[in-house]
Amino acid sequence: MTNANQKDRQSWIEIPHDSDFPIQNIPFGIVQYGDYYPHPASRIGDYAIDISILAEHGFFDFLQLDDLTPFFEPYLNPLIELGKDVTSKIRNRIAELCDIQCEDLQANQNLINEVFIPIDHITNYMPVYVTDYTDFYSSIEHATNVGIMFRSKENALMPNWKHLPVGYHGRSSSIVVSDTNIYRPKGQILPSNEEMPVFGASRRLDFELEMAFIVGKDTELGESVSVDNAEEYIFGFLLFNDLSARDIQKWEYQPLGPFLSKSFGSVVSPWIVTIEALEPFRVSQPQQDPVLPYLQSNGKHNFDINLEVYLQPDGNDASKICQSNFKYMYWSINQQLAHQTINGCNINVGDLYASGTISGSTKDSYGSLLELSWNGTEPITLDDGSQRTFIEDNDTITIKGFAEKNGIRIGFGGCSTKILPAISD
Amino acid sequence: MTNANQKDRQSWIEIPHDSDFPIQNIPFGIVQYGDYYPHPASRIGDYAIDISILAEHGFFDFLQLDDLTPFFEPYLNPLIELGKDVTSKIRNRIAELCDIQCEDLQANQNLINEVFIPIDHITNYMPVYVTDYTDFYSSIEHATNVGIMFRSKENALMPNWKHLPVGYHGRSSSIVVSDTNIYRPKGQILPSNEEMPVFGASRRLDFELEMAFIVGKDTELGESVSVDNAEEYIFGFLLFNDLSARDIQKWEYQPLGPFLSKSFGSVVSPWIVTIEALEPFRVSQPQQDPVLPYLQSNGKHNFDINLEVYLQPDGNDASKICQSNFKYMYWSINQQLAHQTINGCNINVGDLYASGTISGSTKDSYGSLLELSWNGTEPITLDDGSQRTFIEDNDTITIKGFAEKNGIRIGFGGCSTKILPAISD
Repeated sequence: MTNANQKDRQSWIEIPHDSDFPIQNIPFGIVQYGDYYPHPASRIGDYAIDISILAEHGFFDFLQLDDLTPFFEPYLNPLIELGKDVTSKIRNRIAELCDIQCEDLQANQNLINEVFIPIDHITNYMPVYVTDYTDFYSSIEHATNVGIMFRSKENALMPNWKHLPVGYHGRSSSIVVSDTNIYRPKGQILPSNEEMPVFGASRRLDFELEMAFIVGKDTELGESVSVDNAEEYIFGFLLFNDLSARDIQKWEYQPLGPFLSKSFGSVVSPWIVTIEALEPFRVSQPQQDPVLPYLQSNGKHNFDINLEVYLQPDGNDASKICQSNFKYMYWSINQQLAHQTINGCNINVGDLYASGTISGSTKDSYGSLLELSWNGTEPITLDDGSQRTFIEDNDTITIKGFAEKNGIRIGFGGCSTKILPAISD
Repeated sequence: MTNANQKDRQSWIEIPHDSDFPIQNIPFGIVQYGDYYPHPASRIGDYAIDISILAEHGFFDFLQLDDLTPFFEPYLNPLIELGKDVTSKIRNRIAELCDIQCEDLQANQNLINEVFIPIDHITNYMPVYVTDYTDFYSSIEHATNVGIMFRSKENALMPNWKHLPVGYHGRSSSIVVSDTNIYRPKGQILPSNEEMPVFGASRRLDFELEMAFIVGKDTELGESVSVDNAEEYIFGFLLFNDLSARDIQKWEYQPLGPFLSKSFGSVVSPWIVTIEALEPFRVSQPQQDPVLPYLQSNGKHNFDINLEVYLQPDGNDASKICQSNFKYMYWSINQQLAHQTINGCNINVGDLYASGTISGSTKDSYGSLLELSWNGTEPITLDDGSQRTFIEDNDTITIKGFAEKNGIRIGFGGCSTKILPAISD
C-alpha cells in the first residue's frame, strides 16, 4: 500500500481544483445522514467517504482487527485508540480506493453510491468526544498586543511568558462542531468607573483565531512526554474558534483565570486533518530565547498553514477581516505537550490542545477583534461599509485554513458559527 | 417503600456505632473484587453492597427498566443518568433490604454472602467518569488568608469576590480515587529574588481541604439553571483533596490561572453520599452582602459536615492537623451551579464541582498547609514532635468528613493519598 501523501497521485473522483480535500488529505470526521446514526467518515472533494460502509464491505479486513466497533461509533476516539499504525493504514487504504490506478471501487457504481455521499447531504458532528481541553497562549504577537492594551508596552509580556507555554484548563462540554450557532452569553460586567457590577448580555463578544491538536495516545498519571516524543501522541489538527466575552472576562478573571467568559461555546472545524497529511508543510518555529532543557526542541514542529477569518453580517456577504498563519507560533505543539505533562499530568485520546489566538506582526494578521479594533477604539470596516468593534447579533464568524505547496492544497474546510441574540429571561 | 433516611430504622447487619455508613447513608460507589470487573456498589457498616448482584437477582425489577446495563458499568454515570426518581428508589430499596423488618434477604445466607462483601476484600475505583471539573474558591476565610499573605490585609479580597463565586476550570484526567498515591510534581520554579526559573521537584507541596458535588442531570448549551432549581441537578457529594504545588503555581499563574500546579493529581473519597442522605444536616449559609438577582438564594443550601485532615509521616501515626466544616462556605452549591450556567454553559452527568479550600475563622480550622504554616513561616508540630511547613515525601494526607445529629452519623469514609518522591529522570 502506498502513502496517502504521495504528491503526484490522482483520483478518479472529480475534485474541484481549489478543494481543501484532495486525495492527499483524507481527514477523519463524524457524519450523519439518512437513517444512520453519526459514524466515522473521511472526505474527498465534495464527498464524504463513509468509513462504516467500507468496513462493512471488508475493505479493512487486512488489518485483522478483533473488533470492528470503532468503525461504527459516534465519536472517533475508539478509532484513534487503535493507534497511529492502524489509523495510518486506514487512511492510506481510503486514498488507495480513491486512486485512479485502483480498480477496487471504481467499477462498482452501486457501492460508489453507498460510500461517497455528496457533502450537502450530510451533517457533521463533533469528531471526538473531548476528554480534557487546554487552551495555550502561545503567539507572542497576540500576548504582546494584549499586554500593551492592558498593561504597557514596557511590561507587555509577563515575566514567565518566554520561559513556559502559558496555558489554562478550559471547558470541554461546550466545544461544538462548525455550523452550531451560539447564544450571546450573559453574565456580570463591571461598567467603566463603577464599583458595582451589572448583569446583562456581553457587549464585547469576540472570536479568537486558533488551531488545536487532538491527542492520539494515552499516558499514565506520573508520566511525562518529552519534546522529542511528543508528536507520537498527536493525531491531527482542527481549526478552533475560542469565542470570548471580553467584558465578562475583565471582571471575573482575577485571580484564577478566564471562566464564564469562555465556557459558553467554542467551535471546531469538522474534519481532523492528520499530522501525516501536513508533513510537507513543516517549518521551523521562530527563534526563541533560551529555555529550560525539558523544553529544548530540535527540528521543524511548526506548520505553514494559512488562516483567514470572515465576518458575515446577517443577510449580507462575508468580509475577510484578517489573515494569519499557524507558523507564527512562538511555542510549538511538541513544547506545549511536553510542558503539559512535565508535572506528571496524564493525557488521553480525545484531549484537545488549542494554540491560543494566532496573530502575526501586521495589523491585518491580528487574530481577534480585541486586537483588530484595538480594544474597541478603532472600528474595522466591512465590505458592505458597516463597521465592527466586536461581534453583533446574527453575525457569522468563519475561520478557514489551508496549507499550499507545489500545487497541493491541504485544507480544513470551514469553522463557522452564527451568534444568536442572548436568550431573554 | 420507605425512605432510606428514616431516623429510627435499624439494620440486621452489625454496624459499628461510629461507622460513617449506617442504614441512613446508603451511598453509591464503584468496587472491584475477585474476578469481577469494577461495578456499582453501596456500603453499610463494614460491608460493600454489590448492586450488580442485587440487579441480577431481580431486586430492582420493580423499576421496570428497559435496560439493566447501568447496574454493571465501571462508572456510575449511566446509573445516575436514569434520574433521581430512579436512583432514589434504588437507594431506598437497598436500605429496605438491610432493614431489620425486611425478610427479603435476611434469611438467605448464600445470597447474603454474595451481596455483602467485607470492605477489606474490595478495591474502590473512581465512582464517576469526570466529564468536566470546576474548582471554586468559595470560602471567605480561605480567600482572605491567601489575600493577606500575597497582597495585604486591606486588599485581601479581590473586588469581584463578594459578587460572584470565583472559579476556574480544572483538569479532569488526573482526578483519582482515595488510596491512589501521587508522585511529587516537577516543574518550573522561580527562586526568591532571582529572574531565571529553575527546574525541579516542588518544595511547597500542599493539600486543599475541599468538598465536591457531582451533577446528576444534563442541560443543553444555552440553558441556565436557576438557584432555585439547582439542587435538582446535584446527585451527591464527595470529599476532595485539591493537591497544589505552591511554588509552581506562583510562577505560572499569571495571567490565566493555576495550571500545572494543580493538574498532577486530585483525590476524591470513594463513596458518593447522596444529597438526600444529607437532608437532616442542612443549615443556612453565612450572611452575604447583596448579590445580583440571579444569585439570590433562599432556604438552606449549606450542610453541617465536620471535616478533618490528618497527616501521617511514613511509618508513624497520623496527626490531626486541622478541623473545619462545610457549613462555612460563603457561596452555596446552588449559587455555584447557577453561576456556572448563567452564560449558557451546558453541564453533564459526571461533572464535578469542588468547593475550593474550606477554612474556618480559627487557625486550627485552616484547610491548607499554606494557611496552617502561614506561607511556610510558622511550622506546625505533629504528634510525634516532627514539624511541617509543606508535605514531605511519603507523607499520607487523609481527609475525613461526617455529619452528626440526633444520634445519626452520615460520613464519607476517608480520602487518602500518599505523596511519593518525584520520579527521577
